[in-house]
Amino acid sequence: MVADIGRVHAVVLAGGSGQRFWPISRELSPKQLLGLFGTESLVAQAIHRVLPLLEGGATDVLVVTNERLFDELRNNLTAQDDEHLQDVAYLIEPIGRNTAPAIALACAHVAARDPQGIVVVLPSDHVLTDGAVWSDTIACAIGLARAGYLSAIGIEPTRAETGYGYILQAKALPEFAIGCAHAARAGAFVEKPDAQTAAAYLADGGYLWNAGIFVMRASGYLDELRRTPSNAAIADAAEAIAAGLPQDEARERFSALPSVSIDVAVMESAERVAVVPAAMGWSDVGSLLSLETLAAPDAAGNVRVGRGVDVGSSNTVVYSGDRLVATLGVGDLIIVDTADATLVAHRDSVHDVRLVVEALKAKGAPEVTQPKTSLRPWGTWTTLLELPGYKVKEIDVKPGCRASLQRHARRGETWIVASGRARVTRGGDALDLGPGESVHLPVGVTHRMENTGTEPLRIIEVQIGDYLGEDDVERLADDWHRESTRRRST
Amino acid sequence: MVADIGRVHAVVLAGGSGQRFWPISRELSPKQLLGLFGTESLVAQAIHRVLPLLEGGATDVLVVTNERLFDELRNNLTAQDDEHLQDVAYLIEPIGRNTAPAIALACAHVAARDPQGIVVVLPSDHVLTDGAVWSDTIACAIGLARAGYLSAIGIEPTRAETGYGYILQAKALPEFAIGCAHAARAGAFVEKPDAQTAAAYLADGGYLWNAGIFVMRASGYLDELRRTPSNAAIADAAEAIAAGLPQDEARERFSALPSVSIDVAVMESAERVAVVPAAMGWSDVGSLLSLETLAAPDAAGNVRVGRGVDVGSSNTVVYSGDRLVATLGVGDLIIVDTADATLVAHRDSVHDVRLVVEALKAKGAPEVTQPKTSLRPWGTWTTLLELPGYKVKEIDVKPGCRASLQRHARRGETWIVASGRARVTRGGDALDLGPGESVHLPVGVTHRMENTGTEPLRIIEVQIGDYLGEDDVERLADDWHRESTRRRST
Repeated sequence: MVADIGRVHAVVLAGGSGQRFWPISRELSPKQLLGLFGTESLVAQAIHRVLPLLEGGATDVLVVTNERLFDELRNNLTAQDDEHLQDVAYLIEPIGRNTAPAIALACAHVAARDPQGIVVVLPSDHVLTDGAVWSDTIACAIGLARAGYLSAIGIEPTRAETGYGYILQAKALPEFAIGCAHAARAGAFVEKPDAQTAAAYLADGGYLWNAGIFVMRASGYLDELRRTPSNAAIADAAEAIAAGLPQDEARERFSALPSVSIDVAVMESAERVAVVPAAMGWSDVGSLLSLETLAAPDAAGNVRVGRGVDVGSSNTVVYSGDRLVATLGVGDLIIVDTADATLVAHRDSVHDVRLVVEALKAKGAPEVTQPKTSLRPWGTWTTLLELPGYKVKEIDVKPGCRASLQRHARRGETWIVASGRARVTRGGDALDLGPGESVHLPVGVTHRMENTGTEPLRIIEVQIGDYLGEDDVERLADDWHRESTRRRST
Repeated sequence: MVADIGRVHAVVLAGGSGQRFWPISRELSPKQLLGLFGTESLVAQAIHRVLPLLEGGATDVLVVTNERLFDELRNNLTAQDDEHLQDVAYLIEPIGRNTAPAIALACAHVAARDPQGIVVVLPSDHVLTDGAVWSDTIACAIGLARAGYLSAIGIEPTRAETGYGYILQAKALPEFAIGCAHAARAGAFVEKPDAQTAAAYLADGGYLWNAGIFVMRASGYLDELRRTPSNAAIADAAEAIAAGLPQDEARERFSALPSVSIDVAVMESAERVAVVPAAMGWSDVGSLLSLETLAAPDAAGNVRVGRGVDVGSSNTVVYSGDRLVATLGVGDLIIVDTADATLVAHRDSVHDVRLVVEALKAKGAPEVTQPKTSLRPWGTWTTLLELPGYKVKEIDVKPGCRASLQRHARRGETWIVASGRARVTRGGDALDLGPGESVHLPVGVTHRMENTGTEPLRIIEVQIGDYLGEDDVERLADDWHRESTRRRST
């Protein structure tokens, strides 16, 4: 009987590039993978938020991402402190085409397995607080979805924000109220307003922030797309791909689709659209200014995260990782310091960070793509030094974990154990190494490191070769099933 | 006969702490040791400037410094591309007491060996261009010194600078003219003026910048000091120390002296004081604003040294070592980025950098003392990572060079050759290692690394121990005679 009314599925949109958070975010470590807003990454927070609503638990979570981010995303969820996160399913967009096609893909995937299935669509890179309001709000939206509505969550605005889209509440739908949550017809979906309009919206009281969270029957969304010919192509492509279109054809089919948001393609024009207002702490973490929320300001309005001192500055945000940052007599700056790159921006210019990223990209700067520290399912590695002919990394392996059994075509490696206990596989041998002991792994020899102790294992790796790219790795065995043709990293 | 009129000796004052250049300068790497203003360090430039005037060459150079800086200074001069710099003599101030006592110490040292000796006193941390004017200028000043004058070099001002002291020219002394140089009686030595006074000085035409360069008979300076009782104590202490006072007594004696500059103690009041005007490019490199001279500005007045991009900034100086620094919409900033610390300062506040250094010192920040890269006579080392229990360094050894034969009481080390050819001494063994090969050096075992190849030798060192300070080293043999009780570094 439960199957007849459809289960609830979570669709977590995790393909975003997070350019506006550079240099903290990188192409291979976008905003949703960052752990600075809480104890786990934003994508893990998004999943944990929705898990209690899912009958099937994490197996009913569909993470939509792209080929480029898949490995990093899976590494990130595997590395979190909850094994259930390893059970989520991934859906790879053939090519990025904004939210309407991405959600269509997920809906086609769900509908093919659960024809009456309900989807809760969530961004993966937002901050949200207040769990009590949250569960009533989503329960209310699920009720609407079962009654055939496409529903959106609207956040009660607390300021005249110009950085968000708004949803106007129209006629109340009192029959859908649950607990502290109630619903209304959506009168309009409007784009980011200017300051005057935003102030008017706030005064009006009927406008809500569009949080990008949508709840609907999967098949209902596809039906809605079919009302116009250009959108129908989206639904058709999504269903064909969900039915198993070969990868090349899928990419071709998806490339031909319009790049359009769910708001524009569906929500603004559909007939049965509802909104559930929610008084929750919420932010899209849309710019580096969000760093300001991470610590209390001093008397001059300066916020600091990380090591350093200030003399005589005001209204300045300093965020640093391990390095020391000192400020002297400056004002209205956002300073973001990471292991390999620093950004100094005026507060008023911070929304233009993508221009910096584009300029760096044009120069071929590697700092756009890859952070110095990379999360792996079994731990992390950090590049300490890279010069022509050799590279030095620090590798941390969690207790009980091991990297893949692998070999390299163009580099040899030497490992020194800095702390902890290692078992090293080298060809047919197994060696047990402690602090100060080392092993040489020539080009082509299979090898693996394993932490056999109870403390973190820290290894200093010196790579020597004429090519030292992360893609020179052949995985022969892997506890995380990465043996395939996938090319990225240890 | 030459001895009768006294030789010319150079006295290079190299005890300065260079706080105003943090984070490029550190306590153990002050401004005079920096190589960014030219192809060699400022102290090496100062010595090379004066060498052609010295009959005895580098053996007639006396570098005055302090105990703390001695090793670093000698390493720096040894590392320069001129073996003669290894011949200079060092004079260690028992304690810092400004220039009058430091110069007295040098003069007593010279006068004891060469009673008629002439000293050319030079700061070690200034930038000076135009060698042709220079040699006539100093020759003219030497002539004055032989005739019993205390003479100073005065730079023809090119702007109404408020950061320098001035010397007023009085009656010309035409009989001392040599080549393009001519001399005058000094009318007055005046301290740094305010803006209005500086403008008046420039308009007047008779005022010269006080470059801190003095030429005089060593004994004449001591005689001059003896004219007042408090200054006589300086001369007496200097002569006693030069005659071989034990170290403890020397420190006690020097501590009791007034901390006073040569300008105040002698030049402002002495009778036979001359000035030699010189139209030379000169700067005391007094603040980080000097970095502005290292590259041409863009159309918006931004100067950049190092990797990075800018979007929309103006009048901003960005100096970075290896890391990437991006700027976005900022103005009037000086941004200085080094391997382990970054300073972001307003242009108008840059003279207060010492306040930042003091605040960091109060917090015990190691970034005040030691740069990540340290120059050794045989090469360099750079700290890549330091965590409780272990430290990782990259060590570069120049072809044909070797570090000292040494051992450590509290740390073991493992070396991996990253590039080049190494001969490693370990206890009684000698091992020849190439790229990828490694060796473990347990606690207490004597060891040494030598570059036996023709390319730089690069070694990654992992130190493991409960104490990893640079002072845990016992040198048993050293090509630079550092075996003694001296404690600083490999």
